Amino acid sequence: MDLDFIHQLVIPAQTKIAMIILDGLGGLAIEPGGKTELETARTPNLDALAERSELGLVVPVAPGITVESGPGHLGLFGYDPLKYRIGRGVLEAVGVGFELGPNDVAARGNYCWLDADGLVADRRAGRIETGLSRELSRLLTTRIEDVDFLVETVKEHRLAVVMRGPGLGSALTGSDPLKNGLPPQPILALNPESDKTVRLVEQFIEHSCRILADQPAGTPANMILMRGFDRYPDLPGFPQLYGLRAAAIALNPTYRGIAQLVGMQALPVEGGRVADEFRALEENWNNFDFFYLHVKNTDIAGEDGDFDRKVGVIEELDALMPRLMALKPDVVIVSGDHSTPAALKGHSWHSVPTLVFSKYTRADGIAEFGEHACAHGSLGVLPAKQIMPIVLANALRLAKFSA
Amino acid sequence: MDLDFIHQLVIPAQTKIAMIILDGLGGLAIEPGGKTELETARTPNLDALAERSELGLVVPVAPGITVESGPGHLGLFGYDPLKYRIGRGVLEAVGVGFELGPNDVAARGNYCWLDADGLVADRRAGRIETGLSRELSRLLTTRIEDVDFLVETVKEHRLAVVMRGPGLGSALTGSDPLKNGLPPQPILALNPESDKTVRLVEQFIEHSCRILADQPAGTPANMILMRGFDRYPDLPGFPQLYGLRAAAIALNPTYRGIAQLVGMQALPVEGGRVADEFRALEENWNNFDFFYLHVKNTDIAGEDGDFDRKVGVIEELDALMPRLMALKPDVVIVSGDHSTPAALKGHSWHSVPTLVFSKYTRADGIAEFGEHACAHGSLGVLPAKQIMPIVLANALRLAKFSA
Repeated sequence: MDLDFIHQLVIPAQTKIAMIILDGLGGLAIEPGGKTELETARTPNLDALAERSELGLVVPVAPGITVESGPGHLGLFGYDPLKYRIGRGVLEAVGVGFELGPNDVAARGNYCWLDADGLVADRRAGRIETGLSRELSRLLTTRIEDVDFLVETVKEHRLAVVMRGPGLGSALTGSDPLKNGLPPQPILALNPESDKTVRLVEQFIEHSCRILADQPAGTPANMILMRGFDRYPDLPGFPQLYGLRAAAIALNPTYRGIAQLVGMQALPVEGGRVADEFRALEENWNNFDFFYLHVKNTDIAGEDGDFDRKVGVIEELDALMPRLMALKPDVVIVSGDHSTPAALKGHSWHSVPTLVFSKYTRADGIAEFGEHACAHGSLGVLPAKQIMPIVLANALRLAKFSA
Repeated sequence: MDLDFIHQLVIPAQTKIAMIILDGLGGLAIEPGGKTELETARTPNLDALAERSELGLVVPVAPGITVESGPGHLGLFGYDPLKYRIGRGVLEAVGVGFELGPNDVAARGNYCWLDADGLVADRRAGRIETGLSRELSRLLTTRIEDVDFLVETVKEHRLAVVMRGPGLGSALTGSDPLKNGLPPQPILALNPESDKTVRLVEQFIEHSCRILADQPAGTPANMILMRGFDRYPDLPGFPQLYGLRAAAIALNPTYRGIAQLVGMQALPVEGGRVADEFRALEENWNNFDFFYLHVKNTDIAGEDGDFDRKVGVIEELDALMPRLMALKPDVVIVSGDHSTPAALKGHSWHSVPTLVFSKYTRADGIAEFGEHACAHGSLGVLPAKQIMPIVLANALRLAKFSA
């Protein structure tokens, strides 16, 4: 089943859909037989909603596959993440509001610290302070031959590097060894069209090392690593595809970027708490049909291995759910883009507990939102990309299929 | 997994398979937390069979997709409904026993009533009485240029219109607006080969309007709507594919038509009750390996929004199950082609409760046949097209796969 097939069935309706994505929602128990983060959290509102919902376990891409947030979100938005591949560089650039041109090549950059042996001692340059990172990025921005290198700090050590100029290919390997204690990897062209890009990127990295070497003692970065080279992708637009005026509410630029790539409008959020995201939801409720609301801190707590903090973020979201339900949404989805169990301190391949609520759902009657409860739900175990058709059906936005 | 793969594994056996399809079987509770139609029905025989069966929830085509009966049945017969698309016109024509030639183009027609403003006031012409409909269809049958227009009443307002003559394409849009209060839609050719068809269809509709205008006052139809133009499809035959002498038992012509399209033999049924279908099953038991038995009234009750009547039809079927079991079938499947919840008064996307029984099933031991019970079954949530391989396996009609 492809997107064209769904698109042809789409019909208009006056229904509101809210998709709440807790980043890295799925978890693991710390002890055998114990409870996951979600099961540990006190979630009276999600539990009550679960009772009236269809439950299931969502597999972001395929069983056993651990994903980054990009493919995790594309799946939830209905795009096959194996078909639509978007380089991390593009996600970072779009996330900071950079307007990528069709010929630009974007890369994800990291400030890092290289030791005297030429090994990457710290891939994150001590999570360099964002203000300093911005200053350095201004210094690094340059032009080499006929190509501009535009450097933008995303946050801390994280950069978007955009190359703008003629004759650039985007089929390159990255230099980030993805692990401390290893040397930077050689950047290689994967096709002849990318030879020039490789040559200029090598010069740009040398240029960056010289600039960083000139900074005051104590500057935590002396090199940049680059990976995820790609161009702006050619994705069917979410609003056109599904006939939905779609808004994205996310505190973190990466997620606004992903949503914008599929054509959603990223709404401004005043403040940095989940409650502020809900206020943005309330204030814009009348202007859109579909709301994607992203909660980031579940993932960060999971990556930090902080089980209790992840529990706390889930409880924070649960306490806000009545504000969503007071808006009387026609369809509510609560899910995650992947699992990030605190026990693993990172993303994992585990399926993600998911609920779909509408007045037309054949409620499973299971009054608990958790991994084990969702294993008994009538949605079964399903790929993320199957969620949107179910959501559209519940919003009465899909016509009957007939030849 | 494609049909060739299954076909290559098929081996002969002396086993009897009965597939009981309750049209629109899946339902919804009227009240949150309540029971569906199937769960409300007293079904001691189905419950006892369920206990000895594997249970699951069948998705006709894909999650979220609501289907017509055509694709719903093709899936149950093992054909991918997205690959094998059959126009409604063909289903209607074959359903009334019309022998379509390879170059004939068939359309689904509706007698309708157009108001003075040119809007379709009633797409079903007050569900015109079948006898009168037949008389009108005889009057409408005509020849335009070198093409015969053969008009057959299916039932009430429903027609099959078959075009027979040289140079006809079948890539046409339909005129039925699918909703009252809108004007008939223009019929458009989707390729140059269909230009002649469009021109003649327009003349045929004008001809029909003239004939209907000449009828006595009180005739409830003054126009016909046409849609679902198609030719006889090129489907692999069910008997050849699976090595099964296959019979269809259905009171309604559409379902006999679908079964005949895949090469099943439609058996005559004396009388109009489900019990009469079971008598046909008993009388023909020795002559076939596979029986498809169709119960229509679950769907009609669902479309009428009559929860209790749908419950009653299910109970009627349940009471007849001992007659099937007395024949000692090797494999029994009870399922539906889609859901038709009374609460929605129409087909829906919800999955369909399904049981598969044989002496080799790993029985789930769940002594209840219902939507929630089936959510706990070991078949899981599966597409309809996966049912036939399971059935063949239980009938010991599939060899071991080895490269």
